[in-house]
Amino acid sequence: MAKTKMIYFFGDGKAEGNAKMKDLLGGKGANLAEMTSIGVPVPPGFTISTEVCSAFYENKRSYPAGFASELKEHLGSLEKLMGKKLGDANDPLLVSVRSGAAISMPGMMDTILNLGLNDQATVGLGEKTGNPRFAWDAYRRFIQMFSNVAMGMKGEVFEAILEKIKADKKVELDTELDADDLQKVVTEYKKAYKKHMKSDFPQDPVEQLQKAIDAVFGSWMNDRAIHYRKLNNITGLLGTAVNVQSMVFGNFGDDSGTGVCFSRDPSTGKKVFYGEFLMNAQGEDVVAGIRTPEKLSSLKKRNAAVYDELEAIKDKLENHYHDMQDIEFTIQQGKLFLLQTRNGKRTGPAAVKIAVDMVAEKMITEEEAIGRVSPDQLDQLFHPGIDPKMKKSLSPLAKGLNASPGAATGQIVFSAEDAEAWAKDGKKVLLVRKETSPEDIGGMVAAQGVLTSTGGMTSHAAVVARGMGKPCVAGCKSVVVSGKAMSVDGKKFKEGAYLSIDGSTGEVFEGELELVSPKITKDLATFLGWADKVRLSAKREGIAGVGFQVRTNADQPADAKVARKFGAEGIGLCRTEHMFFDEGKLEIFQEMIISETAEARADALKKLLPLQKKDFKGIFTAMEGLPVTIRLLDPPLHEFVPKTAAEVKELAAKLGIKPAQLKAKAEALKELNPMLGHRGCRLGITYPEIYDMQVEAIMTAACEVQKSGKKVHPEIMIPLIGTVKELQMLRANAEAVIEKVLSQKKMKVDYKIGTMIEIPRAALTADKVAASADFFSFGTNDLTQMTFGYSRDDIGSFIGDYLDQGVLPRDPFQSLDTEGVGQLVSMGVEKGRSVKGDLKMGICGEHGGDPDSIDFCYRTGLNYVSCSPYRVPIARLAAAQAVARSKK
Amino acid sequence: MAKTKMIYFFGDGKAEGNAKMKDLLGGKGANLAEMTSIGVPVPPGFTISTEVCSAFYENKRSYPAGFASELKEHLGSLEKLMGKKLGDANDPLLVSVRSGAAISMPGMMDTILNLGLNDQATVGLGEKTGNPRFAWDAYRRFIQMFSNVAMGMKGEVFEAILEKIKADKKVELDTELDADDLQKVVTEYKKAYKKHMKSDFPQDPVEQLQKAIDAVFGSWMNDRAIHYRKLNNITGLLGTAVNVQSMVFGNFGDDSGTGVCFSRDPSTGKKVFYGEFLMNAQGEDVVAGIRTPEKLSSLKKRNAAVYDELEAIKDKLENHYHDMQDIEFTIQQGKLFLLQTRNGKRTGPAAVKIAVDMVAEKMITEEEAIGRVSPDQLDQLFHPGIDPKMKKSLSPLAKGLNASPGAATGQIVFSAEDAEAWAKDGKKVLLVRKETSPEDIGGMVAAQGVLTSTGGMTSHAAVVARGMGKPCVAGCKSVVVSGKAMSVDGKKFKEGAYLSIDGSTGEVFEGELELVSPKITKDLATFLGWADKVRLSAKREGIAGVGFQVRTNADQPADAKVARKFGAEGIGLCRTEHMFFDEGKLEIFQEMIISETAEARADALKKLLPLQKKDFKGIFTAMEGLPVTIRLLDPPLHEFVPKTAAEVKELAAKLGIKPAQLKAKAEALKELNPMLGHRGCRLGITYPEIYDMQVEAIMTAACEVQKSGKKVHPEIMIPLIGTVKELQMLRANAEAVIEKVLSQKKMKVDYKIGTMIEIPRAALTADKVAASADFFSFGTNDLTQMTFGYSRDDIGSFIGDYLDQGVLPRDPFQSLDTEGVGQLVSMGVEKGRSVKGDLKMGICGEHGGDPDSIDFCYRTGLNYVSCSPYRVPIARLAAAQAVARSKK
Repeated sequence: MAKTKMIYFFGDGKAEGNAKMKDLLGGKGANLAEMTSIGVPVPPGFTISTEVCSAFYENKRSYPAGFASELKEHLGSLEKLMGKKLGDANDPLLVSVRSGAAISMPGMMDTILNLGLNDQATVGLGEKTGNPRFAWDAYRRFIQMFSNVAMGMKGEVFEAILEKIKADKKVELDTELDADDLQKVVTEYKKAYKKHMKSDFPQDPVEQLQKAIDAVFGSWMNDRAIHYRKLNNITGLLGTAVNVQSMVFGNFGDDSGTGVCFSRDPSTGKKVFYGEFLMNAQGEDVVAGIRTPEKLSSLKKRNAAVYDELEAIKDKLENHYHDMQDIEFTIQQGKLFLLQTRNGKRTGPAAVKIAVDMVAEKMITEEEAIGRVSPDQLDQLFHPGIDPKMKKSLSPLAKGLNASPGAATGQIVFSAEDAEAWAKDGKKVLLVRKETSPEDIGGMVAAQGVLTSTGGMTSHAAVVARGMGKPCVAGCKSVVVSGKAMSVDGKKFKEGAYLSIDGSTGEVFEGELELVSPKITKDLATFLGWADKVRLSAKREGIAGVGFQVRTNADQPADAKVARKFGAEGIGLCRTEHMFFDEGKLEIFQEMIISETAEARADALKKLLPLQKKDFKGIFTAMEGLPVTIRLLDPPLHEFVPKTAAEVKELAAKLGIKPAQLKAKAEALKELNPMLGHRGCRLGITYPEIYDMQVEAIMTAACEVQKSGKKVHPEIMIPLIGTVKELQMLRANAEAVIEKVLSQKKMKVDYKIGTMIEIPRAALTADKVAASADFFSFGTNDLTQMTFGYSRDDIGSFIGDYLDQGVLPRDPFQSLDTEGVGQLVSMGVEKGRSVKGDLKMGICGEHGGDPDSIDFCYRTGLNYVSCSPYRVPIARLAAAQAVARSKK
Repeated sequence: MAKTKMIYFFGDGKAEGNAKMKDLLGGKGANLAEMTSIGVPVPPGFTISTEVCSAFYENKRSYPAGFASELKEHLGSLEKLMGKKLGDANDPLLVSVRSGAAISMPGMMDTILNLGLNDQATVGLGEKTGNPRFAWDAYRRFIQMFSNVAMGMKGEVFEAILEKIKADKKVELDTELDADDLQKVVTEYKKAYKKHMKSDFPQDPVEQLQKAIDAVFGSWMNDRAIHYRKLNNITGLLGTAVNVQSMVFGNFGDDSGTGVCFSRDPSTGKKVFYGEFLMNAQGEDVVAGIRTPEKLSSLKKRNAAVYDELEAIKDKLENHYHDMQDIEFTIQQGKLFLLQTRNGKRTGPAAVKIAVDMVAEKMITEEEAIGRVSPDQLDQLFHPGIDPKMKKSLSPLAKGLNASPGAATGQIVFSAEDAEAWAKDGKKVLLVRKETSPEDIGGMVAAQGVLTSTGGMTSHAAVVARGMGKPCVAGCKSVVVSGKAMSVDGKKFKEGAYLSIDGSTGEVFEGELELVSPKITKDLATFLGWADKVRLSAKREGIAGVGFQVRTNADQPADAKVARKFGAEGIGLCRTEHMFFDEGKLEIFQEMIISETAEARADALKKLLPLQKKDFKGIFTAMEGLPVTIRLLDPPLHEFVPKTAAEVKELAAKLGIKPAQLKAKAEALKELNPMLGHRGCRLGITYPEIYDMQVEAIMTAACEVQKSGKKVHPEIMIPLIGTVKELQMLRANAEAVIEKVLSQKKMKVDYKIGTMIEIPRAALTADKVAASADFFSFGTNDLTQMTFGYSRDDIGSFIGDYLDQGVLPRDPFQSLDTEGVGQLVSMGVEKGRSVKGDLKMGICGEHGGDPDSIDFCYRTGLNYVSCSPYRVPIARLAAAQAVARSKK
């Protein structure tokens, strides 16, 4: 049997891997191999595969047989190519050891640099380079990093030693320490190591390397990494790869430096060569955000040749990968090295612009472009901004970097824990930090937005916030954070004060500002147009020639108009009960509920009829020409009855009855499990007069709007059907009312009568139910509640444990459980269509706006999804992607 | 195309129908034809088929084409055979028009007698028979019956006329009126008819016949008949047939009479010729219970020849039908006619005795015998009786007929409405009536038992009560009912007073007596032995060679012992939470619940451990050698927390905490939909220490009982699984505890770990779940709740409407909904077995005791059902019948 290859070499223009081997070599390793192959200057090295990581965890953190010898062999090749040996006393080879999974997890896993140094090699390095200060600085950095990352010592121990030696010498900056000082630092570091680890700092470079590899693999399962994967729904990976690469130094002097660049602006998408660098620095200095870096343009002044070479490489890489690249580079003594390239993360607006531009540049096709913007990124384009009218009259309190677009407003807090605690109490907060670190992720999730006082566009805060689609202003230097307060130019703001930030401009404002939603840009319209082209090309049963549609859930004409502007092709769910909560209507509805006789109920309903009719006329007018699915009354009646004594007293007075009588009625209506109680079509069966009134209001409204010249397509939807008998009876009742209205009005209206499929039994017997239905709408909220036996209102007490312990991969109310609930949906579709081949089917649960769920809905054969108005464009894209995916 | 035959003739030893044509001719019609064919003297006539009834309703109460001519033709044949003509002025033919469906519905539908009389024919009949009084009496009866039944007039109108004429003549009995008086009655009746109907009483006998047929068909859909069919789950019938039969008269004089007899005693099953008759009376007089009839034995004295003929016919019929016969006969002027025979209704004890005796007589096989006792009848044998020790010292207040066996105790009420209203308020009532009528059925259902002061063993009260398995004492003459009170020998009992009745002896006692359950008789043991033989012969997957088993749901050793005595083959469901409600345990459990830390919780659980262990030792000991399925904690924790302020205060004091603290904890635990909340295995995931304690208690108890030499087979059942991950995790936890206990005890115990399938998702993913389960137990209570979306606690507000309007054929919590819920059960079985062919499966919902559901469970492939201890014998029979049925 062939031995599985565990390690892949790259260097000298040749590589054993390539860009397609991301699953095996991680994104970084695969691209290092690819770049090497296409002639980009990359320091040689090798990649230990993710399969080794997987085996490491399967075998209780030990390595597969033969690993040690394969490692030795590749290290030998690297030493031969470089003409240097690890730990050599005269001219030592130094390597970096870095993580790199198939999906980028920035800052989540460990890295060790300058590995291979020991006491002797440091002296040799100093002599060889003629720069002992550099050698001692590299050694002290290595000890600190190795001790922290590989051995678990706290970084503060080493910070304290460094600070003390600087204080002793009365200097402030590390750079003010000379070689002797740094040698002293090393001596103290080693002492500290021995004190904590009860052994000497390892001098054997092979031992160092093995421990570093252990640490990187170990970091795959650290809490931060696990949390990050859960947050980003990253599943199914084997593990991380480990990249061992010969070191190049950006901190070799003023002719050295390091930087990060993007082939286009990751914030706006503009086609500009965009990046930052620091001279005489290592890469970590740029990412950590401790020093504020220079713009790439100033590199041209410092070293035009290197700049030109970098620019040419950037173009080469973008053309090679057909996507915007995020590139890490180091200049060592005037020579350029590329350390990493990957498809760059970008904001939503940038993703759209880059996709549209690249189609114009003929770099990608329209259909490829659709896949370049994730629905979550598109969502960012619909994030609110600060009301421009208000903004005109304001001057910002401070200005930082526009690190992640969108505006946010809230009360300021100064730690991730506080952000989470305040948010849990229902408060909207802004997280203000000097800089963020991976420990702050939970707080960033909880906050409306993030504001940092240091760090650049590629700092932790900026990168992570963009990934989350969370507004962020970074590097806002005038903000001084101190404990649980901050000040700007002497003005103090305590915890809980209101601030607003605009992550698209970098501005910070005092107070709680009004936010507004953005408009659809030309690029966005173009992009969504392509998405619609794909989406509407889908072949669907049920509605001929109109593809896979997107409708909206809207109860008010205003919402309907917004949704229509965003491209909704109809209303998938208009909840009539929300209308009853309006001023003026609630009281009449309550009067109806507490009626003791059918006559009294009829009187109250007669008063409601014209009001309901008005509601429906508004909706029909707003949705002219498009179908409108109206769900008849669904919630149990007790939801409309007052709960507190004061409310009872007030209503009783209005209705002219005794509070005790009203209280008794409310008591009688109470249910132990209202979710499974007297609601939906069960109300329609026991109080047919309520549904009769609603149907009369719908049809009268439809006639009147149609008479005014507007086309109407009402779809009457009966909720909570569990048996076909319910639907048969209620359909017959509705048809009688409709017949009455239409014959009175002497009109014809194109109407449909259908049902929700939201009770498991309805899905199980969908072949029976279909016989009486013109359409099905899957109510996946209730279907999820009943299929799992989870009350959405009560799930809070255990869902946290369930997600943390991996019982559930995701909250099934956010993303449809395709395995269980999805099985019922599929069954409903199949059984329904077995009876009526062209039965129109859609989904109106909250899942209708979730991209993964939309994909499932398409695969299952639904005709449309329906979601909230602001999710409509996102659903249009997700639907297009689902269609495109299914073609493959 | 052949015309469908609508009417079937019988008479003169030949018949167009036979006993197998019950669906078409109804039970009565089919048997009249059969009796005619085998030479039993039956008055000739014809039967209009149930297909005509069905067509009648399909065509808006009109008849199929050709019906009138077919009717005319058959009437002609009858007239020819009888040598008389309907309405003939000299010698008129008189006919009865009776209903008769395929399934007997005694007293529910309409009958008209003496049809064919008019003014002229009555005179002719008087002359021909030489008995004008008889003729005028027949006519006045006919007018009254026809007007009431066919024309909808109130009977009271006629009663009033009759009473007035009797008063005028100063007589009390109808028999004291002579021909002239009756002619006067007829004149007044006809006046009343004209006044109410605005037309003369119809003189055309063909018109009379048609109206009578209309009325009988119409009575198929009267409220009583609909109610009766619903109560008895009678579905799928076409309608009723109509039997038109030449009249014979039991009221022709003292040499005439009418009666009802059974080929064996329907109350005890003894092989005695049993019956009642009244001389000079029509059949209605016997059934109505107005006069108390004579025992059959006295017929022998009155007319030995007729008695002998009747006895011979009875034997002939029983031998012909191989079942106990219920026979109606009339003697007209010394000549015997049979009017009806059918398989007789019988009590449970009679059903068992007759079945066992007939096997001994080689009349039927053992397997046929099993089908002769319905599970509901068997249930009657397990009805309580009055504690014999107590009874010894009591003398009865009164004694009536032992009309329906079993004892009952309760507060007396005097109308069906009151019985229903009081029962609704949770009171146990006895319905006391002079006599019952079909209008009283609702009250009889609601009552514990029925006591009547008039009427015989075949009176309405007796027949209906036996059918319901409801204790009944009938014809208790010393009871005088007056308004809402009764008196016995001058002693008065008002509404609400407590009485007890023993329907097996006919005794009535004062006060509320203790009831006890009966023992298993030898016949019953024999019968159940046959049932078990069939049941255990069933081939089942899962448990080799043990057939289709019956287990019990029991939480206490006492219950377990009762169930074992009744034949339970294991415990299918032992609910551990019931144990926590015991004195002493509840407080510790509450302490555990309100614990703020895992340590405090552990302390409380440590205290509970020995108590739980003791519970389990008791159960294991009682069920020695049999499997015991123990369900880990299922209900949400708030069920154990006090609700009222007083309870909170008391518990807080005991636990040494502040009431506010306890109240806050209780508030925090509250749920909007507890049924879908934090319960079952969700508790096991969030508080693993609770399940760990329970598993430790189970296994320690198992070890200790096994050490004492008794075999134990614990089956640990994890409730409310929705995902296999839950089961995997909880199984791993349980196995760790088990390993610990067994290694400490150095023992091996035969244990299993399985799960409930009660969440729809568990059934849908049963192939995944099966991988981690040793057994499945279908929890069809919860499965029904979630599949329908019905809260069992809240269903009351609409289930009445749902059953009344036919949305649901039966309450799905009483009889498993095979179409919907059953689909999930089947899916669970199939998917589970697709992974583990021998996966043991059972049902532990309440459905496990319902015969129809047991049949479904067998067909679906389950290994066992589990039900309450007292249902075990019924389930054994139902299981045997299911097995026998599936062989056909």
